[in-house]
Amino acid sequence: MGYRSNSFASNLRRKNSNIIGVIVPRLNSSFMSDVIAGIEKVVNNNNYNLIISQSLETMKKEASNARAMLNNRVDGLLVSLAYDTTSIEHFEPFIKRKIPVLFFDRIFEHEQYPQIYIDNFKAAYEVTDHLLTQGCKRIVHITGNQLRNVYAERLRGYKKALEAHHVDFDEQLVIINDLSAKEAVAATEAILKMDPLPDGIFTVNDVSAVSCIQVLKKAGIKIPEQIAVAGFNNDPAACVIEPNLTTVNYKGYEMGEAAASMLINHLADRQDLQQTHSLILRSELIVRESSRRK
Amino acid sequence: MGYRSNSFASNLRRKNSNIIGVIVPRLNSSFMSDVIAGIEKVVNNNNYNLIISQSLETMKKEASNARAMLNNRVDGLLVSLAYDTTSIEHFEPFIKRKIPVLFFDRIFEHEQYPQIYIDNFKAAYEVTDHLLTQGCKRIVHITGNQLRNVYAERLRGYKKALEAHHVDFDEQLVIINDLSAKEAVAATEAILKMDPLPDGIFTVNDVSAVSCIQVLKKAGIKIPEQIAVAGFNNDPAACVIEPNLTTVNYKGYEMGEAAASMLINHLADRQDLQQTHSLILRSELIVRESSRRK
Repeated sequence: MGYRSNSFASNLRRKNSNIIGVIVPRLNSSFMSDVIAGIEKVVNNNNYNLIISQSLETMKKEASNARAMLNNRVDGLLVSLAYDTTSIEHFEPFIKRKIPVLFFDRIFEHEQYPQIYIDNFKAAYEVTDHLLTQGCKRIVHITGNQLRNVYAERLRGYKKALEAHHVDFDEQLVIINDLSAKEAVAATEAILKMDPLPDGIFTVNDVSAVSCIQVLKKAGIKIPEQIAVAGFNNDPAACVIEPNLTTVNYKGYEMGEAAASMLINHLADRQDLQQTHSLILRSELIVRESSRRK
Repeated sequence: MGYRSNSFASNLRRKNSNIIGVIVPRLNSSFMSDVIAGIEKVVNNNNYNLIISQSLETMKKEASNARAMLNNRVDGLLVSLAYDTTSIEHFEPFIKRKIPVLFFDRIFEHEQYPQIYIDNFKAAYEVTDHLLTQGCKRIVHITGNQLRNVYAERLRGYKKALEAHHVDFDEQLVIINDLSAKEAVAATEAILKMDPLPDGIFTVNDVSAVSCIQVLKKAGIKIPEQIAVAGFNNDPAACVIEPNLTTVNYKGYEMGEAAASMLINHLADRQDLQQTHSLILRSELIVRESSRRK
C-alpha cells in the first residue's frame, strides 16, 4: 500500500483525522438536504472529509451514532438533535477529549456547546402578528415536541404576539404532532370539526402547511378569506401550492455553511468556539397569497 | 488516547476502514436526498461509516473527490456521475487496488464497474406512449446532457414511442438544458412562441415540469386540454402542483438501499459484484391530471 498516500496513518501521528462528523434527525427533508449541501461545500473546500449519519429522530440512535463518530476520531461534530432527545450525555466524551461539538437548528442550551440557530421566537412572533394584522382572531398553531427549542420558542412567539394583540391564548388551538404530512391531514380534519372554525393556521413547517391547505381546499374552505395559512422553512413547495404559502425564509444552505465554517475556523485556531458560543442567523417572513387578505 | 477505541488504527492493521464513500452530483435535490437517506440507513445498520461528497456537476471536482476518497482508504465507493463527466479514468486507481466502485442512476457503461439503474428507455417510452394515447401529436421533450445514460436512454424511449405511433420525430421539439427551474421557465417561454403550439411536454425531471406548468398557466394555457405535461421522478411537488403531475415513480430511497446493500454484501464476500454486474430497479408511470384527457 506504500504507493497510496496513507492519510489516516499520518493522521494518527498528527492526532487529527481531518474528518468532520454530522448527526442529523433525517437526511431527506428539503431543509436538511440544503444544510448538508452547505456543510459539504465548506468542508470539502477546506480539505476535510464529511462523515454523516441520521438519528432517525431517536435519542438511542443518536447516541449510537455519536459512539461511532468518536471511534472514527472525528476532529469535530455538527449535531441537530433528534425529536425525543432528553439528555446530551452521549456527547460528553467529546468534550472530555476536547473535540468540539456544535449544535445547529435543534440545539441544547449548555455552556460547553456552541450553537447556531435562528431567532425562532422572533420569527414565530412575526408570523402570528402578521396573521392577527390580517384580521385573524382564532389561530390554530400546529407544532412539534416542546423538548426541542425550535418548537418551544415558536410557541412562545405565537403566545407573545397574541398577548400584544390582546387575544386570549386558547390551549385547545395548539396541536402537537410529529410534523409529517400524514399528521397534518389528521390535524386539519380535526380543525374542520371545530365550532366555531378557526380563521388562521400557523404550522411550524411547510410540509404541514401544504397538507393543511390541500385538505381545507377539498372541504371547500376559501384561503385566505375563511382561513389564512402560514408555514415555516420556505420549502420549494411553498411556491407550488395554490395559493402560494406565506412562510419564514429559513436558509438551510447558509446555516450549513456557517456551522461548518465556525467549526473549521476553530480547528484551525482561528476562532475560539467558547468565546463565540452562539451564532444567530437571520430569517425573514415572506408574505404570500395564503394569508394576504388586504 | 488509550481509552478510546482506536478503530482507524486497527483498521490499518486489518487493511480495511469500514468506510463507504459516496460521490453524487448534488446533495440537495429531492431524489438525491432520498438516495442518501437510503444508503445511510443500510451503511449504518451494517456498522460501516459513510463519507459523502458532491461533485457539483463537474468532472474536475468529481476527480478531486475521488482522490480524497482513495486517501481516506474507503472500502468501497458509490458514484452517480457529474453532468459533464467524459471519462472515468479517475476511478481506475480503485480498480487497481481492488476497491469496488459501483455506479448508480447516472452510470458509465464499463465491464469493470457494477451498476444500478432503472430502465430509462422503457420508462420514457411509457410516458411518451401515454401522451400519444391521450391524443398528443406534437410532444416537446425537455432533457439533459446526452453524455449521461439517463437522458440519452429517455430520448431513445421518446423516439421509439413516436415511431410506434407513426409520428415523425422532429428535432426542433427536443430542448436540452441543465434541468433547473430557471431553464425550464426559459424553455417554456420558447415553447409558447412555437407555431403551431405543441400539445404535449415531457420533461426528464419534475422540477422542470412544475415550472413548465406554472408558466403555461400564467399564459392562460389549459392543462391537459391544450398541452398535456408529464415529468419524471415523482418528487413531493408532483402532488402539490395543480393539476397534479403525471410522472415516473423513481424510488430514490430504495435505490440507495439497494446500492449500499450490493456493495456491503460484496465486501462481506456474500456477493460477487462482477457476476451481478447490473441491477435494474423497477419504476412505474403514475398518471395524474396534468395529462389525463380521457
